Amino acid sequence: MRLWGGRFAEENDRRVADFTRSVELDRELAADDIAGSIAHVRALGRAGLLTDDEVGELVGGLDGLATSVADGSMVWDTDLEDVHLNLESALADRIGAVAGKLQTGRSRNDQVATDLRLWSRRAIDRLDEGLLAFETALVRLAEREGTAILPGTTHIQPAQPVLLAHHLLAYVEMAERDRQRLADARRRVNVSPLGSGPLAGAGFPLDREATAVELGFDGVTANSLDAVSDRDFVIEIVGAVALGMVHLSRLAEEITWWSNPRFGFVRVSDAFSTGSSVMPNKRNPDPAELVRGRAARVIGAQTGLLTLVKGLPLAYQRDLQESVAPLFDAVAVFESSLGVMVGLLDTIGIDRDRMRAAADEGYTTATAVADALVRRGIPFRAAHHVVGSLVAQAEEARLRLDEVPDPMIGLALGTAGDRAAQDLAADETIGEVVRGAASVDGALASCDVIGGTAPTRVADALAAARRRLGGA
Amino acid sequence: MRLWGGRFAEENDRRVADFTRSVELDRELAADDIAGSIAHVRALGRAGLLTDDEVGELVGGLDGLATSVADGSMVWDTDLEDVHLNLESALADRIGAVAGKLQTGRSRNDQVATDLRLWSRRAIDRLDEGLLAFETALVRLAEREGTAILPGTTHIQPAQPVLLAHHLLAYVEMAERDRQRLADARRRVNVSPLGSGPLAGAGFPLDREATAVELGFDGVTANSLDAVSDRDFVIEIVGAVALGMVHLSRLAEEITWWSNPRFGFVRVSDAFSTGSSVMPNKRNPDPAELVRGRAARVIGAQTGLLTLVKGLPLAYQRDLQESVAPLFDAVAVFESSLGVMVGLLDTIGIDRDRMRAAADEGYTTATAVADALVRRGIPFRAAHHVVGSLVAQAEEARLRLDEVPDPMIGLALGTAGDRAAQDLAADETIGEVVRGAASVDGALASCDVIGGTAPTRVADALAAARRRLGGA
Amino acid sequence: MRLWGGRFAEENDRRVADFTRSVELDRELAADDIAGSIAHVRALGRAGLLTDDEVGELVGGLDGLATSVADGSMVWDTDLEDVHLNLESALADRIGAVAGKLQTGRSRNDQVATDLRLWSRRAIDRLDEGLLAFETALVRLAEREGTAILPGTTHIQPAQPVLLAHHLLAYVEMAERDRQRLADARRRVNVSPLGSGPLAGAGFPLDREATAVELGFDGVTANSLDAVSDRDFVIEIVGAVALGMVHLSRLAEEITWWSNPRFGFVRVSDAFSTGSSVMPNKRNPDPAELVRGRAARVIGAQTGLLTLVKGLPLAYQRDLQESVAPLFDAVAVFESSLGVMVGLLDTIGIDRDRMRAAADEGYTTATAVADALVRRGIPFRAAHHVVGSLVAQAEEARLRLDEVPDPMIGLALGTAGDRAAQDLAADETIGEVVRGAASVDGALASCDVIGGTAPTRVADALAAARRRLGGA
Amino acid sequence: MRLWGGRFAEENDRRVADFTRSVELDRELAADDIAGSIAHVRALGRAGLLTDDEVGELVGGLDGLATSVADGSMVWDTDLEDVHLNLESALADRIGAVAGKLQTGRSRNDQVATDLRLWSRRAIDRLDEGLLAFETALVRLAEREGTAILPGTTHIQPAQPVLLAHHLLAYVEMAERDRQRLADARRRVNVSPLGSGPLAGAGFPLDREATAVELGFDGVTANSLDAVSDRDFVIEIVGAVALGMVHLSRLAEEITWWSNPRFGFVRVSDAFSTGSSVMPNKRNPDPAELVRGRAARVIGAQTGLLTLVKGLPLAYQRDLQESVAPLFDAVAVFESSLGVMVGLLDTIGIDRDRMRAAADEGYTTATAVADALVRRGIPFRAAHHVVGSLVAQAEEARLRLDEVPDPMIGLALGTAGDRAAQDLAADETIGEVVRGAASVDGALASCDVIGGTAPTRVADALAAARRRLGGA
Repeated sequence: MRLWGGRFAEENDRRVADFTRSVELDRELAADDIAGSIAHVRALGRAGLLTDDEVGELVGGLDGLATSVADGSMVWDTDLEDVHLNLESALADRIGAVAGKLQTGRSRNDQVATDLRLWSRRAIDRLDEGLLAFETALVRLAEREGTAILPGTTHIQPAQPVLLAHHLLAYVEMAERDRQRLADARRRVNVSPLGSGPLAGAGFPLDREATAVELGFDGVTANSLDAVSDRDFVIEIVGAVALGMVHLSRLAEEITWWSNPRFGFVRVSDAFSTGSSVMPNKRNPDPAELVRGRAARVIGAQTGLLTLVKGLPLAYQRDLQESVAPLFDAVAVFESSLGVMVGLLDTIGIDRDRMRAAADEGYTTATAVADALVRRGIPFRAAHHVVGSLVAQAEEARLRLDEVPDPMIGLALGTAGDRAAQDLAADETIGEVVRGAASVDGALASCDVIGGTAPTRVADALAAARRRLGGA
Repeated sequence: MRLWGGRFAEENDRRVADFTRSVELDRELAADDIAGSIAHVRALGRAGLLTDDEVGELVGGLDGLATSVADGSMVWDTDLEDVHLNLESALADRIGAVAGKLQTGRSRNDQVATDLRLWSRRAIDRLDEGLLAFETALVRLAEREGTAILPGTTHIQPAQPVLLAHHLLAYVEMAERDRQRLADARRRVNVSPLGSGPLAGAGFPLDREATAVELGFDGVTANSLDAVSDRDFVIEIVGAVALGMVHLSRLAEEITWWSNPRFGFVRVSDAFSTGSSVMPNKRNPDPAELVRGRAARVIGAQTGLLTLVKGLPLAYQRDLQESVAPLFDAVAVFESSLGVMVGLLDTIGIDRDRMRAAADEGYTTATAVADALVRRGIPFRAAHHVVGSLVAQAEEARLRLDEVPDPMIGLALGTAGDRAAQDLAADETIGEVVRGAASVDGALASCDVIGGTAPTRVADALAAARRRLGGA
Repeated sequence: MRLWGGRFAEENDRRVADFTRSVELDRELAADDIAGSIAHVRALGRAGLLTDDEVGELVGGLDGLATSVADGSMVWDTDLEDVHLNLESALADRIGAVAGKLQTGRSRNDQVATDLRLWSRRAIDRLDEGLLAFETALVRLAEREGTAILPGTTHIQPAQPVLLAHHLLAYVEMAERDRQRLADARRRVNVSPLGSGPLAGAGFPLDREATAVELGFDGVTANSLDAVSDRDFVIEIVGAVALGMVHLSRLAEEITWWSNPRFGFVRVSDAFSTGSSVMPNKRNPDPAELVRGRAARVIGAQTGLLTLVKGLPLAYQRDLQESVAPLFDAVAVFESSLGVMVGLLDTIGIDRDRMRAAADEGYTTATAVADALVRRGIPFRAAHHVVGSLVAQAEEARLRLDEVPDPMIGLALGTAGDRAAQDLAADETIGEVVRGAASVDGALASCDVIGGTAPTRVADALAAARRRLGGA
Repeated sequence: MRLWGGRFAEENDRRVADFTRSVELDRELAADDIAGSIAHVRALGRAGLLTDDEVGELVGGLDGLATSVADGSMVWDTDLEDVHLNLESALADRIGAVAGKLQTGRSRNDQVATDLRLWSRRAIDRLDEGLLAFETALVRLAEREGTAILPGTTHIQPAQPVLLAHHLLAYVEMAERDRQRLADARRRVNVSPLGSGPLAGAGFPLDREATAVELGFDGVTANSLDAVSDRDFVIEIVGAVALGMVHLSRLAEEITWWSNPRFGFVRVSDAFSTGSSVMPNKRNPDPAELVRGRAARVIGAQTGLLTLVKGLPLAYQRDLQESVAPLFDAVAVFESSLGVMVGLLDTIGIDRDRMRAAADEGYTTATAVADALVRRGIPFRAAHHVVGSLVAQAEEARLRLDEVPDPMIGLALGTAGDRAAQDLAADETIGEVVRGAASVDGALASCDVIGGTAPTRVADALAAARRRLGGA
C-alpha cells in the first residue's frame, strides 16, 4: 500500500522499502497518533467537511483502534512503512471508504509533529516523576545517615570534611535543575502544530485553537513552515536528558570508586550488584557502570541531533525521521537509569566508620585552622602559609593536625615572615587554638553559612527538601 | 608567585606552568572578578573581619584596578598563572600587605564560579540584543518584500507556494525560542555562589544574601559542594547557542543555494560577498558559509562540555578549567554571526521575478487542486490520486496545472476508481474549478488558518511581530 | 540462571535484570561466539585439560548450536542476560554436565573481545565489498555520461566547467580512502585476545597462537589487561564509517539539490523516490535524505564511543557494553546506505542539456580567459583584474564571456594599471584570444594536468579506475 | 588589499573583515606556505612560464621571507585577511611587480591544501616522537618498579593481582596503536594537491610530480575536485589524536584516584602538583586532571569536524576554514599532554607496600584457587561455585583466602552439588592446595600465557619493548 500512487509509474526498489521503514520504532506513537486523529476528525466536523455520521464512524473506528493498540491485539504490518500507514490501513479495514476522508486538511508533516509533541509531553511528565523519586531517595538516604561524615574532595584529593547528607543534597540541587529545564522545555513542546498542513497551512478553514484545547495543548504554533520542520523541542529534551544523565554519571562514578575496598565507604546491595562468571570473589556495581556508560550514549544522541538539523533548509526534510529514535532512546535511558539509581540508593550500605576514618586523614581541617589564625589577627595569606608548613611538618612526623605539639606550631608561626604570626608564636594558648580548630567536628561547625556543611545548616536544607518533596 | 608555598618543597616543572596557564583566556573575566572582590570586601567588613579603613583601602585599590583594566593599562604577566593571580599581585603592588586579607573566607572555587556567572549574565543579555536585532532584520526584509512568492519546499523539492515573508517569519519563530531558552538559562545563571568556600562553605559568618543583592543576583546557591562544581549553566548556555547557530546555519544554507544562478532568488551584496584570488568571475557568500561552518564548531564545543563533566566526582576538579574557552568562544561566535546576518539581510537583493517563476514550476498548486476536489465531494485519498495522475499527464505534455485541458481532467477523474470522481468527470464546470484552484494566488489564499501562508494571515503575523519588536 | 551464585545471598532486583540485559542485541554475535568456543575447546584439549571424548562432545554440541542459530531454530530466552548465557545454557541442555567445563581458562572478558573482533572482521569485509560496488556504480555512471559537462562549483557558486565524470571520480577517490582506512583498521582488529582471561591472563598453559591461527587471526594480543579492555578497534571502525557516511552525505546533498527543478540536472528514478501523502505533485529523493540524516546518527555514535571510553581505568568496565550497539548500528547504516546509493546511481537520469546550459552561465570560463592573458605576457594578478572588470561589464550587458565585443575587452585591458595589459589592448587579435578562451570546451581542455578535468585526463583516470575495479 | 577587485563595486562591510579574518591562526602555516611557493615557482620556471631571472627573484624573495618568519621579524598585518595575503604583500614589498606572477597556475584552494598537508606531516612526525617518549617513560617506570604488585581491577573492584609493570605495558600497547594510526594517516596525508587549481586542475602544463618530489610528497592527488575539498586527513589525524587523548585520560584517571590517600599507591611529585590558594593541606595532580579535561576538548573537536564536512557539496566551501583551528589545537594538546605525562611519570613516587597490601585484600586470588580445583578434577562451573561460597565464609570470618581452615574448605566443597567436589572434600591435602593457590605470588605465576602477568612473561614483554624503543 502506498499513498502517493497517482504520479508514479514504477514500484519502489526493495532496498528503498527496507531503508525507509520506521514502523518498528514509531509504533510507539500509536496512541498519540489516534488521539490526534480524533481531534482532527472533530475539527473537520466543525468545519462542515464531515457530516455528523462520518464523524461518528471515524471516531468510533479510531476508538476501536485505540483499544486494539492498548490491549496489544493490533497487528503491525512491516510492509506498511510506518505507524501512520498501519493505522490508516487498519481503519479502512474496520470502517471502509469513509476512512479515506481522515487525511482531509492534514498532512503527514503536521501529523507527525503533533504526535511527537504529545509523546514528548507525556515523556517529560514521566521524567519529572522519575526525578522526584530520585530526589526523594537521596533525601531518604541523607536522613538515614544524617551524621555520617565524608572527606569532601576537590581534585579527587581530601579537602574538607563534609556531611554525607550535604554531599547527597548537592545531587538534589542538580536534579531540581533538571526538573526545571524539562519544565521549561515542556512550555515550548506544548503547542499544537495541527493544521499547519504539509508546510503552508491547511487548505481548509480548520479551527486550530479548538483542536489544540481538545488535545491539552496550551496554544497553537504561529508559523506553518516552522511548525512542520521544527525539532528544537526534541533537541532541547535530549539536551536536558543528556545533562541529567551526566549528573547520574557523576554519582555513579562516586559509587563505583567508593565500593572499592580501599574506600569501602559504601556497599552496593546484592540486589544491585553482579558477579563474575570466572572470578568467584567479584561483586561489581554494574548498574552504576551502565548508568555512566549510557550517559555517553545520550551525549552522542544529542550530538547527532544537532548535526542532523544543522544546514537543513525549510521546511520538512526526510532527515528529520532520524530525530525520533534518539528521542525515544534518551527518554527510556534516563527513566530506567533514575529507577535503578533509586533502588540502588534505597538498598546501599554506608560504612560510617570508614568514612570518618578517611575524613581524619589528609589534613582536611587545615583550612579551619588557617581560618582560626585569621580570627586571631593573622592576614589570610600568612595564615595559609603557616598552616602549609605545619601540615608538611605533621606529615613528616606522621601526626594528625589535632596532635601537633606546641613547638611545631611555634616554628611554623615564627618562620612565616609575618609580624602578627610571630607575635602569636609567643602566645601560650595558641596550641589549644590550633588543635581545637583542627578537629573534624569543629571544622564542620565552622562552615556556618547558607549552603555550608555546618550540621545546623544541613539540617535546615534537608528539612526544606523534605517539605518540598512530601512524605516517604 | 605561587599561592600555596607552605607545603611544597620543590618548584613546579616548567611544562606544568605552560600546561596549566590560563591568563591569556580568562583575563576576559577581569571586570567581573573585580566586581566580585569588591562585594566580598564589603561582606568581610560587615562581618567585622576587616576594619572600615581596610575596606576603604581594598575597595580603593580594586577600583583602581578596574580602571586600569578598562583603559587597557593593566599589564598582564603570563608568569602569573591566571587572571586572579594577576589581579591579586597587582593589588598587592598597589596597596601593600592589606591585599593579603582579600582572600579571607573566599576560595578560588567560589570566586571563579561567581566570575563565570557574572560574565554569563552579561553574555546572555548581549545575545538577547543580538537576537532582537536579527528578528528585526528579518521583519524589515519581510516588510520590504512583502508580496514576493517563493516555491516553498519540502525534501528540497517544490511543494506549495508560500510568501517570502512567511518564510522569513519562520526564522523569527526560531529566534524567539532561542531568546526564551537563554532567558530560562539566565534564571539558573543568576544566583550567587560567593561564600561557598572551596567546597564546604566559607569558614566565616558572611552574609551571602547581601553580597548577592550587591552583585545583582536573584538569590544564593543552596549547596556549597554543588555551587563550586556546577557548570550546568555553561552547558545550558552553549547548548542554547548551538541550537541558535543551527538556526542561522539553516538560513545560511538557503542563502548560499539561492545565490547560485540556477536559483538566482537572492543576490548577496558586494559588502557581504568575497571574490576569488584566481577566478575573476566569483562572488561568494563567504559570511553565510562561515556561519554554517561555525555552527559545527559550537556543536563540537557542546559535545566537549558534556563529555568534560560526565563522570566527575564532587566537588571542583581542574578539568572544569576547560569549560571556559568553549563558553567564551560559543558566545563570541553567536554574537558575531548574528551581527553578520543582520548586515547581510539588510543589504540582500531579492529577485521576485525569479522566485515567482520558480513557484510556477513544480506543480506547487497540486495540493490546492486536490483540496478543491474535496470541496466538490471527492474523498481526500481519491482526490490525491486524481491530481497525481493529472500532474503526470501535464508533465508529459509540458503543461502547467492551470493550463490542463478538460479532457485531461476528465481522464484523471474517470480512472481514479472513485464514484464521486467519476460523477464529477461529467461536470462541465470542473475544468474551471481545477484550473482556478491551480493558480498560485489561489493556492496561497487557500491556506487561510492561523500560521498559514494566506496573505492576510501573513500580514497579521508580520504586524504582530512588528508590534512586539518596536519601530525601525 | 546466574553464573556467580556462590557469594551472593540475595536475588537481583528486577530493574537490574531489565537494565543490564543485552541478548536482543548481542545475539548477533552467536556464530562468532560459537566459533570462538570451538577453538577454545580444542586449546583445552591440547593442554590436556579436556579428554579427547570431552572435546568431541563439546565440539559436537557447539556444532549443533551453530546449526540451530543458522537455521533460526535457536530459542532465545530473555531471562538469560546475554548471548553467552543463552548459548551456555543451550549447550548444557544438549550435552549435559560436560558443558560446565567450557569456561575453563576463559572469561567473559576475553570471550567478548574475541567475538567482537571476529564480528568486526567480517563487517569490514562486507563494507569493503559495499564500497567496491559503490565505486563501480560511480564509474559505470561516469562511463555512461562521459561527456556531460557540469558547472563545477566552489562556495556553491559556479566556478569552472568540469566533466560530470570528473565529478563522480572525486567520490571514487573518497571511497578508496574509506577502503584503505578500513583495511588499516582490520590489521588492528585481527589479533586474538583469547587466553587473556578476565584481565591477568588465563590460569592454564593455553597455546594462544594455535587458537589464533585456527580462528584466522594474524597474531595474538600482547598484554592481557589491554586485550580485555581495548575497544580502540570499535572506535576506529565507527570513525572510518562516520567519515564514509560523510562522503555519502556530500553526494546525497548534491543529488537532492540537483533534483530541484531549478537545477534539474538529475532525475532520481521512481524506484528510488517517494511521494507525498498530501501533495500529489511531489517526487522526493527520500533515500538520499535519509543517507544524509544517518550520517548524523553515525557521527553521534562516534562521539558517544569516544566519550564512553575516556577516563575509564583498566581493565574491563561494564560501561563497555555500550560499545556494541553503536558498532552494529554504524556498520548496518553504512552497508545499507552504500546499497541504496548504488541502486540510486544505477537508475538516475542525467539531463545533460540542463547541466551544459548551467555551465554556460556564471562566467565559469573566466579563469581560462585570465590564464590566456597570462600566456600573452600579462602578470597573473593584472590578468585577474582585467577579467574581473570584463565579467562586471558583461554581466551588466547580459552577455556571456564568449560574446564580449572588442571595445569592452579593450576597456578592461586599458584600465587595469598594467603596462603589458595596456599594450595588449592595442593588439588586434586579442578579441579572438579572449572569446576563444572563453568557450567551455576550451576551458575544459586547458586543465591538462594530472587530476585535471581535461577530457583526456578524465578518460585516463576513468580507464585506470575501471582496470582497478574490473568489469561490470 | 584585496585580491578580487575587478568585479566588485563596493567595499566589504567591516563586520565581514572581522568575521572572515584568520591570520592570527593560520600564520602558523607560514613556513609551509613559503616552501610550497618556492616549489611552485620552480615548476613555473620549468614550464617556461617564468624566466630564470624571475625564478631567481621570486625564490630569493621567498627565502628572505622564510628567514623573517623564522626569526620573528615578519610583521603580520591583521588588515590582510590571512597568512597568504600577508606573505604575498610582503613579497611584493620586497621584490616588486614580479611578485604578481607567483599565483600563476595556482589558487588559494590547492595552496591551502598543500600547506595543511605539509603542516600535518610535520605534526605527525612530532607526535610520533612524543609517543615514543611516552612509551619510553612507561617502560622506564616499569623497569624501575618491576616487582611492584597491584590489585588489578575490573569494574573498579579488585579482581586479580597483576604486576605494576604489566599494567604500565598495557599503555605502551595503546600508544603503539596510536603511532600506527598516525603512520597510516601519514600515508594519506603525504600526497601533493599542488596543481589542482581552484577545482578543475591548473590551467598550465605544470609538472605536478616534480613539485611533489621537491616537497617530499610520496605522490600527487588523483582528482582535482577532491584534492581541493578533501579534509579527510584532518579528520583522520584529529580522530587519531582524540583516541590518543582518551588513552592518556585513562591513565590520568588512575593517577588521580591512586593519589587519593585511601589508595596512596602513587605520589605525584611537587613538580607536577599544584596546591590550593585556600586549603593549606592540598596537593593536587592538576596536570593529570587537565589531560583528562582536554581529552574532552579534542573529542568535541573531532565531532565538530565531522559535522562540518557532512553535507558539503563539491568542491571547496568556506566552511572548511573551520577545519584549521581544531587541527592545530588537537595536535598542540596531544603534544603537550604527552610531554607533561612523561615528566609526571619520571618523577612519580610508587608506594609498593600500599599496593601490595591492597592486592592482599578483595580476595583477588579466588580465580587462582578455582583454577587449582579444576586441576584437581572439578568442572569449572562447580569450582567457581565452591570458591564463591568460600569467599563468602571467609569474608564473614574476616579471613584472607590463604588463611581459611580445612573445615571451611570442606563445607564449601561438600555443599556444591558436584560429585568430584564432594570427593575432594575428603582429601587431606586439599587445605594446602587451596591455601597455596591463594597466595598472591602463586596467583601471579599461574597466569603464564603470552600477554599474561606471570613475572617471566612480563619480563619478556618489558625486554621486547626496551629493545624496540632503544636505550634511555
